[in-house]
Amino acid sequence: MKDSAPSAGTTIRTIKPQVNTYTTRATRIMRRIQELAAISEDEQGTTRTFGTPAFLAGRDQVQRWMEAAGLAVRIDSIGNLRARFASQNPAAKTFVLASHIDTVVNAGKFDGPLGVLLGLDMLEQLVQQQARLPFHIELIAFSDEEGVRYHTTYLGSKVVTGAFDPSLLQRRDAKGITLADAISTMGGNVEQLASDAIPASDWLGYFEVHIEQGPVLWERDIPVAVVTAIAGQQRVEVTLRGMAGHAGTVPMDMRQDALAGAAEFVLAVENFGLVHKEHIVATVGKLDVRNAASNVIPGEVTFSLDLRSADATRLASAYEALHAKAEAVASLRNLGLTWNLIQYTAPITCDAALNKVLTQAITESGYEVVSLVSGAGHDAVPISAVSPATMMFVRCFKGISHNPLENVEERDLAAALQVAERFLSSLISS
Amino acid sequence: MKDSAPSAGTTIRTIKPQVNTYTTRATRIMRRIQELAAISEDEQGTTRTFGTPAFLAGRDQVQRWMEAAGLAVRIDSIGNLRARFASQNPAAKTFVLASHIDTVVNAGKFDGPLGVLLGLDMLEQLVQQQARLPFHIELIAFSDEEGVRYHTTYLGSKVVTGAFDPSLLQRRDAKGITLADAISTMGGNVEQLASDAIPASDWLGYFEVHIEQGPVLWERDIPVAVVTAIAGQQRVEVTLRGMAGHAGTVPMDMRQDALAGAAEFVLAVENFGLVHKEHIVATVGKLDVRNAASNVIPGEVTFSLDLRSADATRLASAYEALHAKAEAVASLRNLGLTWNLIQYTAPITCDAALNKVLTQAITESGYEVVSLVSGAGHDAVPISAVSPATMMFVRCFKGISHNPLENVEERDLAAALQVAERFLSSLISS
Repeated sequence: MKDSAPSAGTTIRTIKPQVNTYTTRATRIMRRIQELAAISEDEQGTTRTFGTPAFLAGRDQVQRWMEAAGLAVRIDSIGNLRARFASQNPAAKTFVLASHIDTVVNAGKFDGPLGVLLGLDMLEQLVQQQARLPFHIELIAFSDEEGVRYHTTYLGSKVVTGAFDPSLLQRRDAKGITLADAISTMGGNVEQLASDAIPASDWLGYFEVHIEQGPVLWERDIPVAVVTAIAGQQRVEVTLRGMAGHAGTVPMDMRQDALAGAAEFVLAVENFGLVHKEHIVATVGKLDVRNAASNVIPGEVTFSLDLRSADATRLASAYEALHAKAEAVASLRNLGLTWNLIQYTAPITCDAALNKVLTQAITESGYEVVSLVSGAGHDAVPISAVSPATMMFVRCFKGISHNPLENVEERDLAAALQVAERFLSSLISS
Repeated sequence: MKDSAPSAGTTIRTIKPQVNTYTTRATRIMRRIQELAAISEDEQGTTRTFGTPAFLAGRDQVQRWMEAAGLAVRIDSIGNLRARFASQNPAAKTFVLASHIDTVVNAGKFDGPLGVLLGLDMLEQLVQQQARLPFHIELIAFSDEEGVRYHTTYLGSKVVTGAFDPSLLQRRDAKGITLADAISTMGGNVEQLASDAIPASDWLGYFEVHIEQGPVLWERDIPVAVVTAIAGQQRVEVTLRGMAGHAGTVPMDMRQDALAGAAEFVLAVENFGLVHKEHIVATVGKLDVRNAASNVIPGEVTFSLDLRSADATRLASAYEALHAKAEAVASLRNLGLTWNLIQYTAPITCDAALNKVLTQAITESGYEVVSLVSGAGHDAVPISAVSPATMMFVRCFKGISHNPLENVEERDLAAALQVAERFLSSLISS
């Protein structure tokens, strides 16, 4: 946290609501999360991908809530909803509270909307209290974090940081619609994408509240956690090629079974992850047997490898170790190997000064401090390139996410609100 | 071989052609195989599934060749092409030479047609020699062995043995056409299916020449093998259920990864097969990860298990051992397990008397005798219920089958013709 001193002469009303107030407010946030989740591309479940009619209807609803809270709201060229509560000092920097309101297909209710609607509730309190702020607060509902429609994540936050890559405008969705056309259809102006960025010198900090999407808080029954880093990621597509053959006629010792090779690698990945579990997660999530039939020895198998670590060095060495393992499996089994690195994202570290304030807010609220590395990517990744940034995770049901079963208990939401408000209050008072 | 004594007074002309004659005849058989393969449902490759226009066009071609050879030909109600060279003794029994002329999708040229066209060449010689036979010979081109269209194998041979199940008539193909309608469209009469069977008391024996569909003869460079048994088969569909989760957020030691469990089982199947390789083959050919994504821990995986052995006891114990292994994997990994036996076919033993004659024919032709168990199913399976039956395998390229790369070298085809003719000649002379 740099440059967070309040402007001279600003007076701050310290916020000291009661716990039962948090419960009441959590109930209302929960009701809004439910209402937003009911706005979906399909009747069953929740799906609002970037720019679809359901997305726009959902955004309209959030905009109405923001405006009802007394906030000045605008929609930028990439479709982000941006509500501003300004400092009386026009030269003040901007602190951003944000999360996203697009979803994956058949999503849960909380991934994204939780952070937006919790942030809105905090801003609404500040408006009602006629708070005088030492910095501007911008509450942003990002239009695209999940990247479902254009297979590229963080469209919304990249515009806000000025890192949007204009070559993406020609990318097409599954129906052949370019991103440029999708933006125009939404009423956006592609010429304004650059000017919608918050200038680097104006950023004071970034804070996002998000469900954990993992089981640690659930298992430990602790409502919130400080995020210390967001893991880097390497995604590899691996193909093993053997020789297809008749399952009844090729003797066991004359086979080149690509699936057996893949199975050996899957177990090696799991084992590597378990041995290095403090620092890494390693997953084979997809696996396809080409021309599969129950009576055919698999001749070719393609599978994914997803490696994540907050430590760039460990990530690189895991990658090398598993690449070597794949080569060894292929060599011993006389299989062909193709190893393609599909994606590399470097790990980022959350801002230490912001986390110090967040940790204190958790302690003062009476909760044990848990520090977590986010294995999932978040808008904080691109934003950390221009601003101090951190996140707070909220306990979710069994860590289940990207799934209609995704759930947050109301008492944990109330706790998260309490901690977040204490955090924001500290920043305002400091 | 029972009841093969020639009728009193029959005279036999012993067949003693030269090796170069076999080469010439093999060239013609090969040419016919090539011509038949060019008749296909699609322009590229070879596909002739039961009852399609391409199937009928291919059968017409074989019928013309049979008639040109001077044989009496009829088409039975299931669409089998049945050419008869009768003994002058009307009360004689019938010896059947056969294979099938339907194919899998994108098939090879030899699987089926080889046996029909090699048999035709032998019968043509007998006709030209005006041979007097102690038994009738029926050469059958079965209309359905592969079972592609109606997902049930041996339609042709089951009619010939009288084992056809009339309930199959209501089964529908992918377009919704019932088998009854398909038979009518082909000009068959479903009322006559039962009367097209060869009465059990009329069967003298059954002999089929077929490509090995495995690599043993290829590797050993030996042209033919005696088939001693056709393996029994157990096909199981297995599902493991864990918990889907985010690949970046669920710690390694809190996962219930269904794919890792499946991988452990796949390796156990391979290992079991290798340990018992003299008696069994064991294959996982299909494997599907439900809702697979590279960033999702697999929550449910379904896969096939194909077990084959010529020994019913070993087949049963392999099944039990691997079922127990699946239960152990599921239990240790806290996964749900569903284990469904989809298919059980008992092993059959080829006729010892016929194989004695076949072995002698191989030895007299100057080849090493190799005995093989057929891991693939063949029409000999249903036929062995009513008749002594055996098969001879022919060396094929690397054991590759059900694939356009399927190939037989002409010198091996010539050797197979020589052995088969010596075998048939021995039966006729005996």
